[in-house]
Amino acid sequence: MDITALDTPALVVDLDVLARNIDGMAAYCKQLDIPLRVHAKTHKVPEIAKLQIAAGSQGITCQKLGEAEAMVDAEIDDILIPYNIVGIPKLKRLTALLKRARITVALDSKETATGLSQQASADGCVVPVILELDTGGGRCGVGSPQEAQHLARTVMKMPGLDFRGIMTYPSNPRAKPFLDETVARLTRDGIPVNVISGGGTGAEKFSKELGCTETRSGSYVYEGMTRVGNSEMLHPRRCALRVIVTVVSTPTPDRIIVDGGQKTFASYPPTPYGHIIEHSDAKIYGMSVEHGHVDVSGCSHRFRVGERLSVIPLHQGMTSNLHDELAAVRADTVEAIWRIAGRGKIK
Amino acid sequence: MDITALDTPALVVDLDVLARNIDGMAAYCKQLDIPLRVHAKTHKVPEIAKLQIAAGSQGITCQKLGEAEAMVDAEIDDILIPYNIVGIPKLKRLTALLKRARITVALDSKETATGLSQQASADGCVVPVILELDTGGGRCGVGSPQEAQHLARTVMKMPGLDFRGIMTYPSNPRAKPFLDETVARLTRDGIPVNVISGGGTGAEKFSKELGCTETRSGSYVYEGMTRVGNSEMLHPRRCALRVIVTVVSTPTPDRIIVDGGQKTFASYPPTPYGHIIEHSDAKIYGMSVEHGHVDVSGCSHRFRVGERLSVIPLHQGMTSNLHDELAAVRADTVEAIWRIAGRGKIK
Repeated sequence: MDITALDTPALVVDLDVLARNIDGMAAYCKQLDIPLRVHAKTHKVPEIAKLQIAAGSQGITCQKLGEAEAMVDAEIDDILIPYNIVGIPKLKRLTALLKRARITVALDSKETATGLSQQASADGCVVPVILELDTGGGRCGVGSPQEAQHLARTVMKMPGLDFRGIMTYPSNPRAKPFLDETVARLTRDGIPVNVISGGGTGAEKFSKELGCTETRSGSYVYEGMTRVGNSEMLHPRRCALRVIVTVVSTPTPDRIIVDGGQKTFASYPPTPYGHIIEHSDAKIYGMSVEHGHVDVSGCSHRFRVGERLSVIPLHQGMTSNLHDELAAVRADTVEAIWRIAGRGKIK
Repeated sequence: MDITALDTPALVVDLDVLARNIDGMAAYCKQLDIPLRVHAKTHKVPEIAKLQIAAGSQGITCQKLGEAEAMVDAEIDDILIPYNIVGIPKLKRLTALLKRARITVALDSKETATGLSQQASADGCVVPVILELDTGGGRCGVGSPQEAQHLARTVMKMPGLDFRGIMTYPSNPRAKPFLDETVARLTRDGIPVNVISGGGTGAEKFSKELGCTETRSGSYVYEGMTRVGNSEMLHPRRCALRVIVTVVSTPTPDRIIVDGGQKTFASYPPTPYGHIIEHSDAKIYGMSVEHGHVDVSGCSHRFRVGERLSVIPLHQGMTSNLHDELAAVRADTVEAIWRIAGRGKIK
């Protein structure tokens, strides 16, 4: 099918750029000698996760249990969920999922550990766990090597838990004393630290320097605002995701309106909204819920109703999360329509 | 089912508050003597649209064709789509939908009119249309009464189109000369103006003053940031929507982490993120993709992992758009689980 047969707004991934991004990160991590465990939250598409695994990623990372279930449904194995799984409904789903795939979860409290242990014991299984450390990120995680040691000792005594190691986010060189002391304390206690998981696209080198056994990278797969940092630098050879939109109104010579707004782009002020590939001098200056407002006062091109434009969204993971399907395109041919199976799986 | 049986994050609507908002707007419009045509884009839930119709709304408004299809699938009739329908795939879907329900669409160009006319003729049907005027909103719409007259004359000559009238958004007292002159010009031309559609929650009175035949109001149904304007003023007796979240981490005495972030709340800086009903002194100060970061330094309450909180989201329509289901709750009982049928229907 030709790309022009897609109705708009259409979320599209350029397969050549996608392959370049996936292969590039795989080669970089191989060169650094740090195993990669890709973070699938950016795309939530099993087919893309499989491409990443084929390129050498040792399993994947999912941010929520529901996302992991969607990936296991697609026969993906070896998933890290770096999230505290809390409450009976999720704990039951987790033990059910453990019978279908290798899953590791993170925890940062005795309460989370207790829930996991009790459910694992009740369901006759063992949950692999790692401790989340707050080495400066200011989100979840125990706040000191002493606390990590204390919680690890507690976990080691609980039935149904398999203590695998520790994790941090993002991998920051300043975390080295924290990680080193934690490993030393656990080792002294005879607690094996088989996993040291670091993370953050762009932090692969730091993960290696920190002594991590793996690094979690996500946003590199599409590339976007968080990496490129500046809408002027968004380039179709680097950024894999596009939204194809249609011009639906040309009310004045300096303004056109396209059929994608905040429910298509997940864009919001004061950041820019996206980059129009065909006309870099056309500036998306605002978005209402279903309309994109474009300033074309600097364009010699005269836009017409019905014309299609390709927009590189800035917030690629958030934009992807609004769509049910992703068209996989090479040159102008749609090779596949992929379901964004993890979209909306926030539980 | 008790509300505590819902796993989190859970999108919930308080049925008593919802009924109060729906009845209040219906009574207000009745008092003003301006017919209401509710905008369903805020909720995208057929069951809520039916409650609004039962309270007196003369049909509904849908922002996209796909949203209207979802509503017609639920047997809702009489829908205005105030959007330029452009391109063969959508035009074919529109003529198909016209065989199932009364649909009116807006247009603001000869190009859109031509597409509608040709498809209607090809499919042997007639499309009711209204002209969109830009009376100051700066989005779509013809820019002057002269242009409106010119386009109306063009539409009147096209087969397959039934010219119904005009629309504006938002209803603003300053639009009166524009609307009056447009109506006068069309009337002089013998072009009947049966519909004058105004819009915007809060603009009902202005719609009446402008001489509108109906007013489109949407966000009132839930109430939220766009109406209340200040997170301090969000009140559970006024705001119908909540997200139930679970505390998943209590890493420091002044910080807790809940299991809903940007993919649950559609919240973004620099606006506040939401209001926690049970503890108004706990402040959501940040969100990552799947985590909500809460400052509890001002709270005497000691939060624990597993505790549930009810958050009034600020951007209610955008938040609702991230979820597949809405739990309809009265007191602490879940009376129904409604599918957010229009979610993601951006085509």
